Amino acid sequence: MAEFDLLALIRELRGHQRSDVLLGMGDDAAVLRVAEGMDLVTCVDTLVAGVHFLPATPAWDLGWKSLAVNLSDLAAMGACPSWAQLALTLPNSEPIFVRDFMQGFLALAQREGVTLVGGDTTCGGLAISVTAYGLIPPGQALRRDGAQPGDHILVCGALGEAAGGLACLQADGGSKESPEVKPQQKRLVQRLQRPEPMLAAGLLLRGRASACIDVSDGLLSDLGHLCTAGDVAAELWLDALPRSEELCALFNAEEVLDLVLAGGDDYALCCTVPEALLVAVQDDLAGREIETQVIGRMVAGRGISILGSAGHTFQPRRCGYEHFKT
Amino acid sequence: MAEFDLLALIRELRGHQRSDVLLGMGDDAAVLRVAEGMDLVTCVDTLVAGVHFLPATPAWDLGWKSLAVNLSDLAAMGACPSWAQLALTLPNSEPIFVRDFMQGFLALAQREGVTLVGGDTTCGGLAISVTAYGLIPPGQALRRDGAQPGDHILVCGALGEAAGGLACLQADGGSKESPEVKPQQKRLVQRLQRPEPMLAAGLLLRGRASACIDVSDGLLSDLGHLCTAGDVAAELWLDALPRSEELCALFNAEEVLDLVLAGGDDYALCCTVPEALLVAVQDDLAGREIETQVIGRMVAGRGISILGSAGHTFQPRRCGYEHFKT
Repeated sequence: MAEFDLLALIRELRGHQRSDVLLGMGDDAAVLRVAEGMDLVTCVDTLVAGVHFLPATPAWDLGWKSLAVNLSDLAAMGACPSWAQLALTLPNSEPIFVRDFMQGFLALAQREGVTLVGGDTTCGGLAISVTAYGLIPPGQALRRDGAQPGDHILVCGALGEAAGGLACLQADGGSKESPEVKPQQKRLVQRLQRPEPMLAAGLLLRGRASACIDVSDGLLSDLGHLCTAGDVAAELWLDALPRSEELCALFNAEEVLDLVLAGGDDYALCCTVPEALLVAVQDDLAGREIETQVIGRMVAGRGISILGSAGHTFQPRRCGYEHFKT
Repeated sequence: MAEFDLLALIRELRGHQRSDVLLGMGDDAAVLRVAEGMDLVTCVDTLVAGVHFLPATPAWDLGWKSLAVNLSDLAAMGACPSWAQLALTLPNSEPIFVRDFMQGFLALAQREGVTLVGGDTTCGGLAISVTAYGLIPPGQALRRDGAQPGDHILVCGALGEAAGGLACLQADGGSKESPEVKPQQKRLVQRLQRPEPMLAAGLLLRGRASACIDVSDGLLSDLGHLCTAGDVAAELWLDALPRSEELCALFNAEEVLDLVLAGGDDYALCCTVPEALLVAVQDDLAGREIETQVIGRMVAGRGISILGSAGHTFQPRRCGYEHFKT
């Protein structure tokens, strides 16, 4: 797959180009205009076959997801996404795979107003590295290190569903179309393969959340980063943790809790909000129909404790997400 | 190799941090201040083991080169480099490899005033994807598409030496330390493994070169891109092509010409300069001790022709660079 095949394909598929792209694909580098009075927010994430996704994952979904996981990082900063670059490593020339992949990638890019401004195709084991770029007014980035004791812990988006979807696919031997797939399984697999970056939530949290992170490695692991960065502890309320209907229909209560606390690939946002702003933030999120749950609060100390309704401390079976092995 | 081991290592190794890095490594994304009145220039390049480098390449050199090839793209735009992100995919946890790699990467980064602002480590076949960021005043980027008939073709940097180094290593079975390595071989291997991005040349060419590209796939291939983008043809002068002493000591005349015309990994700049500016540009480049050669001129038409001193047309044996197979 030569670089120029991909370029031709993207030119054919891409839609509207942002006016702040002064020079896009096809030169040694892109030239971009950062709007006056804005700062640049940027991140990179790599997905490797067999580590971050099952090899049987449809190419369209993979294109979508490889951009979505990066937009999720921008969402966690409160940034508005603007551009992306794509470095695609492929075992061999597969035009149909690349076309489907690019259609998934560009579907999300166009919906979110992101222009693909450059990239690179190379030969090797299937891996996708995306660089995403966004904009934010000075001083408004949501950082990991601002949580204070007394702040409430909010989750925007679903927990455990993507990991539930992975469990369904693995139980199923990874086959794409099983005759007896239940609608709940479809929903969970969709959560895994076409995650929705919580960009609208990130924008609403700007200037109000004291800390924010995207949940990619499981709630306990990522909330743990907020605790460490802010030098503060977290108290989770067992009964307040969101457990979706779909998860409860397919897994027993203990499994559901494992998935919610330690499943990966959620791409929900976990943030902390000062008491005084909580109601306003919740109202605004509800007004945008963003699924939101208060799941605990920050306290002085270290680490994470999980409290049951009777006041007892609950000990989770798993603490963090490990990439699956094939 | 967990992400946080790498972070700790980088914190230990990194030197001065630029003041325009508002939030560096360790959050969901970096926050960067683009200086007022400047545009952002950005590119991404991936190196895959066995495709872009021999598996026996020393880790230090690999770190250097993975940044250098990206800075070369910025040089070809006339941009001043500012930041980088690193996505490193490794087969397994190899702390010594990572330390050496990071030392090479950061040696070049610090010399060029580049701050590493983020990245990602994943498990998989060895591959390195670097995103580089630079700054340029509006309207001054050196593009591929501006060459005009009559412009002279300049090369800044060496041609064919890196490909000569690769040929030496391959003839040598890829062993790192052969007892009878000649000094010329050492120089060529150094050109291959520790390329020097032509950043100073790029800055001097700003506003004066009508088109510019970095020579990574061989002179004929990359000059061909300038021709296509500018809808113009090139006439190369056979006797004017630079043939280094080292190349001539190790290869016969025909081999040297193959390497100079079609060898890869040069990371020289190939640019076109209007007649009226040529002497001033040459003087400025010479003043900075940048090796420069006028190798031909642009003419109306299509494609590239190579003229011998007797006025005959020379037909090259190879036209472009193909990634080596292992």
